[in-house]
Amino acid sequence: MAATLRIGVIGAGRIGVLHARNLATRLPGVRLEAISDVVAASAEKCAKDLGVASALTDHRRILERKDIDAVVICSSTDTHARLIGEAAEAGKHVFCEKPIDHDLAKIDDALAKVARAGVKLQVGFNRRFDPSFSRVRDLVAGGSVGKPHLLRITSRDPSPPPIAYVKVSGGIFLDMTIHDFDMARFQMGCEVTELYAAGGVLVDPEIGKAGDLDTAVITLRFENGAIGTIDNSRKSVFGYDQRLEVFGSGGMAEAANAFPNTVTLSNGKSVARDLPLNFFLDRYAESYVREMEAFIACVRDGKEPPVSGRDGRVPVVMGRAARLSAEKNRPVKLSEIG
Amino acid sequence: MAATLRIGVIGAGRIGVLHARNLATRLPGVRLEAISDVVAASAEKCAKDLGVASALTDHRRILERKDIDAVVICSSTDTHARLIGEAAEAGKHVFCEKPIDHDLAKIDDALAKVARAGVKLQVGFNRRFDPSFSRVRDLVAGGSVGKPHLLRITSRDPSPPPIAYVKVSGGIFLDMTIHDFDMARFQMGCEVTELYAAGGVLVDPEIGKAGDLDTAVITLRFENGAIGTIDNSRKSVFGYDQRLEVFGSGGMAEAANAFPNTVTLSNGKSVARDLPLNFFLDRYAESYVREMEAFIACVRDGKEPPVSGRDGRVPVVMGRAARLSAEKNRPVKLSEIG
Amino acid sequence: MAATLRIGVIGAGRIGVLHARNLATRLPGVRLEAISDVVAASAEKCAKDLGVASALTDHRRILERKDIDAVVICSSTDTHARLIGEAAEAGKHVFCEKPIDHDLAKIDDALAKVARAGVKLQVGFNRRFDPSFSRVRDLVAGGSVGKPHLLRITSRDPSPPPIAYVKVSGGIFLDMTIHDFDMARFQMGCEVTELYAAGGVLVDPEIGKAGDLDTAVITLRFENGAIGTIDNSRKSVFGYDQRLEVFGSGGMAEAANAFPNTVTLSNGKSVARDLPLNFFLDRYAESYVREMEAFIACVRDGKEPPVSGRDGRVPVVMGRAARLSAEKNRPVKLSEIG
Amino acid sequence: MAATLRIGVIGAGRIGVLHARNLATRLPGVRLEAISDVVAASAEKCAKDLGVASALTDHRRILERKDIDAVVICSSTDTHARLIGEAAEAGKHVFCEKPIDHDLAKIDDALAKVARAGVKLQVGFNRRFDPSFSRVRDLVAGGSVGKPHLLRITSRDPSPPPIAYVKVSGGIFLDMTIHDFDMARFQMGCEVTELYAAGGVLVDPEIGKAGDLDTAVITLRFENGAIGTIDNSRKSVFGYDQRLEVFGSGGMAEAANAFPNTVTLSNGKSVARDLPLNFFLDRYAESYVREMEAFIACVRDGKEPPVSGRDGRVPVVMGRAARLSAEKNRPVKLSEIG
Repeated sequence: MAATLRIGVIGAGRIGVLHARNLATRLPGVRLEAISDVVAASAEKCAKDLGVASALTDHRRILERKDIDAVVICSSTDTHARLIGEAAEAGKHVFCEKPIDHDLAKIDDALAKVARAGVKLQVGFNRRFDPSFSRVRDLVAGGSVGKPHLLRITSRDPSPPPIAYVKVSGGIFLDMTIHDFDMARFQMGCEVTELYAAGGVLVDPEIGKAGDLDTAVITLRFENGAIGTIDNSRKSVFGYDQRLEVFGSGGMAEAANAFPNTVTLSNGKSVARDLPLNFFLDRYAESYVREMEAFIACVRDGKEPPVSGRDGRVPVVMGRAARLSAEKNRPVKLSEIG
Repeated sequence: MAATLRIGVIGAGRIGVLHARNLATRLPGVRLEAISDVVAASAEKCAKDLGVASALTDHRRILERKDIDAVVICSSTDTHARLIGEAAEAGKHVFCEKPIDHDLAKIDDALAKVARAGVKLQVGFNRRFDPSFSRVRDLVAGGSVGKPHLLRITSRDPSPPPIAYVKVSGGIFLDMTIHDFDMARFQMGCEVTELYAAGGVLVDPEIGKAGDLDTAVITLRFENGAIGTIDNSRKSVFGYDQRLEVFGSGGMAEAANAFPNTVTLSNGKSVARDLPLNFFLDRYAESYVREMEAFIACVRDGKEPPVSGRDGRVPVVMGRAARLSAEKNRPVKLSEIG
Repeated sequence: MAATLRIGVIGAGRIGVLHARNLATRLPGVRLEAISDVVAASAEKCAKDLGVASALTDHRRILERKDIDAVVICSSTDTHARLIGEAAEAGKHVFCEKPIDHDLAKIDDALAKVARAGVKLQVGFNRRFDPSFSRVRDLVAGGSVGKPHLLRITSRDPSPPPIAYVKVSGGIFLDMTIHDFDMARFQMGCEVTELYAAGGVLVDPEIGKAGDLDTAVITLRFENGAIGTIDNSRKSVFGYDQRLEVFGSGGMAEAANAFPNTVTLSNGKSVARDLPLNFFLDRYAESYVREMEAFIACVRDGKEPPVSGRDGRVPVVMGRAARLSAEKNRPVKLSEIG
Repeated sequence: MAATLRIGVIGAGRIGVLHARNLATRLPGVRLEAISDVVAASAEKCAKDLGVASALTDHRRILERKDIDAVVICSSTDTHARLIGEAAEAGKHVFCEKPIDHDLAKIDDALAKVARAGVKLQVGFNRRFDPSFSRVRDLVAGGSVGKPHLLRITSRDPSPPPIAYVKVSGGIFLDMTIHDFDMARFQMGCEVTELYAAGGVLVDPEIGKAGDLDTAVITLRFENGAIGTIDNSRKSVFGYDQRLEVFGSGGMAEAANAFPNTVTLSNGKSVARDLPLNFFLDRYAESYVREMEAFIACVRDGKEPPVSGRDGRVPVVMGRAARLSAEKNRPVKLSEIG
């Protein structure tokens, strides 16, 4: 019987608090030992709420502790690659929120350090662990739809982020579609070789002024000959619209939206139900628990994490390819990006 | 800002462990101080798993503690009424699993002690807190279906309990339908005056030999003139079948079954989805958290619990009326029972 | 290859025109030769619209024609039994709208004449031919739900008939529930032995003043031990509510409502679809064609019709039993009625 | 009150017989006077089955008749443009099956003759009249989804046509996607300016050897800035897959597949329903009746047909643009085609 795994969380923002809470209350076999944030009050509040012994402002105090086995990196995106490297060099296993970085050289440097240290690295593409999306993947991988021919991902946010965020986000393809690029590779079990991105500014002209798009359709061509589409919008008034389907020679598997209840109201006007879940923390609540379970199991059993460093890198290549495609209005091969 | 509420759990069986876990991990503002079970190992395991300081075999050690505000009674049914009385006399607020007892005199004695002590008592009819069933109630109470005319409750278990349990269960109406009797009163917001129960032994002849039924349809007449039906089976091969609808002058609200995912598989044979949730702890996981939240809030704010002692008593009257109706094959007024 | 079947329609009211139109336009292998109605203008309009050669006021002119093989009786209910007898004695095969009569002696007399004449008689319980209800029956008969344990029929009309009609309708059980009694026998493939009817006046007090009920729940006990419920309302504001389910040892087959389209609209308030079909001629359009197809095939091939004279009689017994049960508030055995 | 419209059908193949039957049996206010086919037996069988007086081999005998108001052209595609011209010059209103031709010059010649003659021309894009697709259009046109941002059309056939047909079909974009190009323009109420087509041969290598594709995804850019996708497959093992959705600033309207019944079977393995309708004549049965109703009404009332000659021309331009796009693997502007 394995010993309890000791974990530190770096970054006590929204997603850091989420992971910290799951580690403290939902996940057996681990102990959340410390939490750090550059804002002392954030780390302290989180530690107090969850009964965590140590609240820090300097993440290096976590990396120095010999008794801590792994860290969960939830700090701002621009620090991910550096922190992965530091953690790896300190011999810690690493769970890191997506994306690793927008710069491929920095990603490659971080992944090289992970390889040298021989630690585990899992990237936080949590949607793979959603009960519905993982069920589709199981069906596809098990042959239930035959040979895949067409993939469709619908991914629309309830509302756009603040313009200030848009400006530093890396653009819709690296900020939002990156999840869908990961999902596409995950569902099809093979790589995309080329893509074509058509985008527009239909939701808010301010997004266009910030140099970004708010609506996009991306066509993907896979190694195995299959073709996929992703459609994105920054604003879905009816809530979080997150669906996918894989169509193949033997059938089709579809995942529909998730709702807060199963109630239908029929009256003199319509047969209606409440809106789908609206907030990503509700929609993907279960997936956050399950991805961390998987990380813990891999560290404990010495297995490869289900979302590898390479899985963290390729969607960044795809995001850059999509940006180039939209700018040039032409198909782009992933090999053009690197 | 209110102080943390301190709670003890009595009974560390399946449902006791569930409540203990929710209190320890999901519910803010409470501290689980102690857990008792007549089987020492059960109390100890639960306390260890959840980091609870005190594991006991004698529940009186909990009742003696001045710093404990409330107890959650999850021991065997035959001890409920007595423990409610003892806890009330010790000045503890009480959450008690259903049913209070099968004997109305014992129920009345327990409720009298609660009244004298002025403590809160909430009975564990958790299904009222299911997101779908509570949404239907909100719609009905808010007038969305107009004046209710017809109620239908479908309540079918995945599989019958062991015959040994059947023999001491009090019969299908007190053991299983009791939840539906509570739901009927809850949804309609008024009392049943008369009922007619038609039952059969269709699932397993051993259940019949044990003097019980395994299939039943109960017709309910409500004070307000509405008519309801409950249909029960001890064995639904496709999983837990828990649905209801309220039909009225202005429309209908329906709650459908709950599924583990939203995936549909279309192939050359059918368009199919996975079975509904099969286990009551999965199906009603959320409702257990929400009922305890409600209890905690009532204790803290000095409000009346949403499921009162009377709400615990009336379904027992209905269960006894149903048994009499099935035996005599005639409608029975609740006033015949007491 | 069989010759064309020649048919006359008696009664050119709403349902007579429907059958005439189906015979004239939708059904191969038949020729609609004549149509009669006591109101000359009705027969003439129908004949003109459909290109039928002969429009009559006296149905006996149809019965006298040697070249006519069969008649479709769509006149008023009080004439059905007499016309069946006359047609049988004239050697015509008979399709007769439901009900044959409300008087069992008259029904028995008509059935005796049919038997003596050796002609075919099919009664117009069209709902058996609805694509969804017949699919459920096929699944049940084919063993897909195992041994049936529970039946549920939901049958609610969009709005009550005029009070003048209510007064002569024979009451809700003979006028409306009679379809559901037929459906219950059809789905279960066995007879009901006893029933219990609970009714109320919740829709319109005028219906109560006319001595009738507008809301009812009927519990059925079948020969095979299964238990069924029918729930009826005269007024469903969201449209025609026509559903059923058969639950058994091996599973459940359900038929849902029928909608005019498959469109869903998601907006900031709800995810909604249009109301179910509202009018019985729309809801059951297909079933009227299919029942007539079946009648024609039986006449041509000399087979027994799928809805026999006995199938026309038993629901009348059940309707009378339900009325007695509601009056006396006790279960009634069908053997009490005759 | 308008006089009866007299109609001749040219071509008694599968679709000709369908229109002839609808004209003869489902559509009031018209009389089917004559039917022609180059194969005498086909015209004769159809005329006999439907009681049509005149069966011909030469369509000119229809055009010569002064008493015939309109013709329905259902002959082979290569004759459409010529027959439209001849019919127009004979002063007949024209309903013509899609496509008018694959050659734009021939289309323009036919449309010029129609314009000169001042007759009505309606092109047979029947899917616009499907109850679900027309309902979506009504919602979109009525503003229920706000300003449209994204369109998605899923259009997959149950099985590929014979290879012999594939070779002369004009290719998947002109043979199959042409319906979806029409639907895209219809739903959005504006024109496509540019498209990008990605295709593959995934269903059957023989289709590839015949120079065609069997799987395709087309990205559409509309004048109003919206973006659309169409995905096509020649083989959907679960039946005819015909869905669409329009997503906009105010919501989303979706049309789902059509099923033969509403029955669900739950057993120990799954909750399943029968496959969607498999055959286009079943799936679109209602749309064929409704498009002809619309044509008849336009001729009678002197209004413009809902699917104009231009509506027949533009999808051919789109089909040619898609072929060029797939060949060159680049976006193509419709203005490049003409």
